[in-house]
Amino acid sequence: MPVDFETLRVRQDGAVLFADIAAPPMNLLGTALVRDLVSLIQRAEDDAACQVLVFTSADADYFISHVVVTRINEYREQAAKLTGEPSLAILFRHLSASRLVTIAQIEGRVRGAGNEFVLACDMRFAARESAIFSQPEQGFGLIPGAGGIQHLTRLMGRARARGDVERGRLRRGTGGALRLDQSSAAHRRTWRVRPVARSSDRRFPAAGRAALKDRVNAIALAPADDFRRDSDLFLECARNPETQRRIQIAMTRGFQTHTGEMALSEMVGRLAAG
Amino acid sequence: MPVDFETLRVRQDGAVLFADIAAPPMNLLGTALVRDLVSLIQRAEDDAACQVLVFTSADADYFISHVVVTRINEYREQAAKLTGEPSLAILFRHLSASRLVTIAQIEGRVRGAGNEFVLACDMRFAARESAIFSQPEQGFGLIPGAGGIQHLTRLMGRARARGDVERGRLRRGTGGALRLDQSSAAHRRTWRVRPVARSSDRRFPAAGRAALKDRVNAIALAPADDFRRDSDLFLECARNPETQRRIQIAMTRGFQTHTGEMALSEMVGRLAAG
Amino acid sequence: MPVDFETLRVRQDGAVLFADIAAPPMNLLGTALVRDLVSLIQRAEDDAACQVLVFTSADADYFISHVVVTRINEYREQAAKLTGEPSLAILFRHLSASRLVTIAQIEGRVRGAGNEFVLACDMRFAARESAIFSQPEQGFGLIPGAGGIQHLTRLMGRARARGDVERGRLRRGTGGALRLDQSSAAHRRTWRVRPVARSSDRRFPAAGRAALKDRVNAIALAPADDFRRDSDLFLECARNPETQRRIQIAMTRGFQTHTGEMALSEMVGRLAAG
Repeated sequence: MPVDFETLRVRQDGAVLFADIAAPPMNLLGTALVRDLVSLIQRAEDDAACQVLVFTSADADYFISHVVVTRINEYREQAAKLTGEPSLAILFRHLSASRLVTIAQIEGRVRGAGNEFVLACDMRFAARESAIFSQPEQGFGLIPGAGGIQHLTRLMGRARARGDVERGRLRRGTGGALRLDQSSAAHRRTWRVRPVARSSDRRFPAAGRAALKDRVNAIALAPADDFRRDSDLFLECARNPETQRRIQIAMTRGFQTHTGEMALSEMVGRLAAG
Repeated sequence: MPVDFETLRVRQDGAVLFADIAAPPMNLLGTALVRDLVSLIQRAEDDAACQVLVFTSADADYFISHVVVTRINEYREQAAKLTGEPSLAILFRHLSASRLVTIAQIEGRVRGAGNEFVLACDMRFAARESAIFSQPEQGFGLIPGAGGIQHLTRLMGRARARGDVERGRLRRGTGGALRLDQSSAAHRRTWRVRPVARSSDRRFPAAGRAALKDRVNAIALAPADDFRRDSDLFLECARNPETQRRIQIAMTRGFQTHTGEMALSEMVGRLAAG
Repeated sequence: MPVDFETLRVRQDGAVLFADIAAPPMNLLGTALVRDLVSLIQRAEDDAACQVLVFTSADADYFISHVVVTRINEYREQAAKLTGEPSLAILFRHLSASRLVTIAQIEGRVRGAGNEFVLACDMRFAARESAIFSQPEQGFGLIPGAGGIQHLTRLMGRARARGDVERGRLRRGTGGALRLDQSSAAHRRTWRVRPVARSSDRRFPAAGRAALKDRVNAIALAPADDFRRDSDLFLECARNPETQRRIQIAMTRGFQTHTGEMALSEMVGRLAAG
């Protein structure tokens, strides 16, 4: 550590590890990015000198877009290398329970499992001008399968969580009901995230921090079985012929391309017509 | 479907059913309205072509005012026709767990069980100028018995939920801590609710939507036993002589009349003096 | 009742008891203040004529600052006189479950167990200009041990609760995510708290109020075992040599003095350097 990965540019600063996500063309959670995240987390946890993980994106338009829906089995197998279970939900939950402090410094779109990834982090700082959050799964007949339902329902309450996810509603910048840790103008971002990362690093004792995280998670982090159930249901929904039909149509219209997804919600809204 | 009911004007538009509540003089939840809601829900659930239920009010001052406190046994028996249990709480919980998407388009006052009804719906859109929410039960020595405690405590947290209900505090228009799905100026209402209803209808696959609703409810919809307990406690409180005394006084001052309840909180505040 | 205590000035007004906290030099939760709070609560609960407890502070800079970290065993023994358990967490939880309506009228700083005390109250009214809330424990390698984790995680969600406590983040005046019952300009405070206290006193029947409190607590007040566990962990952390070292350094820099704690977060931020 730091070692560079195919899709992650890693830089160390004291006990803080900065990982810049660079998985062209649009930071999709596919086999390579999941494999690299698994390696990164594994190494960081094994390195006693590492306390903090900060995630940033090399793509101004996308932080993490979503999973590669045509490679579900492949990326799930990569996830299993850390947790023994082929499930992004369980991988992200592992991160939530990790001794590491995890910070997402968000610019651009976080969608689907991308949003579920930042929900799993300890803190989410967003650039007010460019951050866009959404769960577009329902447009394909899918549900958020990587923990989003667990986190969002606890954050937003029953009605809003369901309403937001069902409609694939976008939340921008300040996040509103998403209760971000902070959003700020882009040029102030680095200025804000670094001192937080550093204070987690050195200023306060790690033992007290670990005790605090355990106690908060005991209250508010859903049991692994609930993450598993969501993960299984996502798979079941993905096998549905109507879901497959919609994915095929979307692929012909630019789905999973950088340009095609700049206005994803419009694309998803027109899939019914075929 | 659509069949008209004594207290509901029903109109169908594709898979969306619009039910306009028209139970003069003030949309009280009495025997007739509960009976008609039971029939409507039953028929809508039995009709595979029906996906969405939108509730509106024919009375600009009241969406649903509250239960008829002098007819508790009668309306409870009507509720039992759907669920087998004489309890509004269980009836409303049935609605929350239904496969139907339920939307309340709120103008005017929603009080007591009226507010508990909209809390049971999937989405609540309110007219900013005219919507008024409150739980006035404590003024009579009663508690919200139809699920309000379950929903509000989860939405607002321990202190605020108790404080609001205890004081019979009013929340207007935007709803604040009630976390409405949206509030808007009255003339934009229809424009907003329709596309949401239609998108729930046709745009996205119903199977994915049902899976999502189940998972969210598994987290955030209270167990039926908790609804039952509130319902039983409401009955117990209603038998209290002090509660009966306050109801009698209120009846002499315009309680359960359209005009008399325009300023209900003032009326309730003066019941102690007798 | 009212009897005066060493650290509490008590005044009765009908069924409302006003307790003004006056424990110079800075309203620390030490042996004397905990002993007096225990006596006050005991007497108020034993007096059928008493319905409401309102807490105010005689010190404009501090409402309750925090515990006396050098007298942990002593104040815990005082707490045990009410509940049989040497734990502030269990004492404060007792207050949350009490039949009394408890109101904190907050001016000045509430930190650590001071903030946990007001979180245990039924209602929190804050002076917008002067109220400051924080949990500074992590700077010493401690965790909030008197219920703060239980309340804050439920109020603010997993990420924000952890982020706030971990960084010892300050929240001012309106409280934001703390969801106060109300904050207002200082000169309007009394005007606002009194009618609420009085209405809890006389206006509405006590039996209905007790039923409501029980039902809300059944949902949102954490089990006693969770409070116990936090309390035990606080003790364990306090025995840590690094924690003891930081407390010693802080003591040489004005910790637990009125002036020295006016800028506590800066002091805590520099403890690592020694």
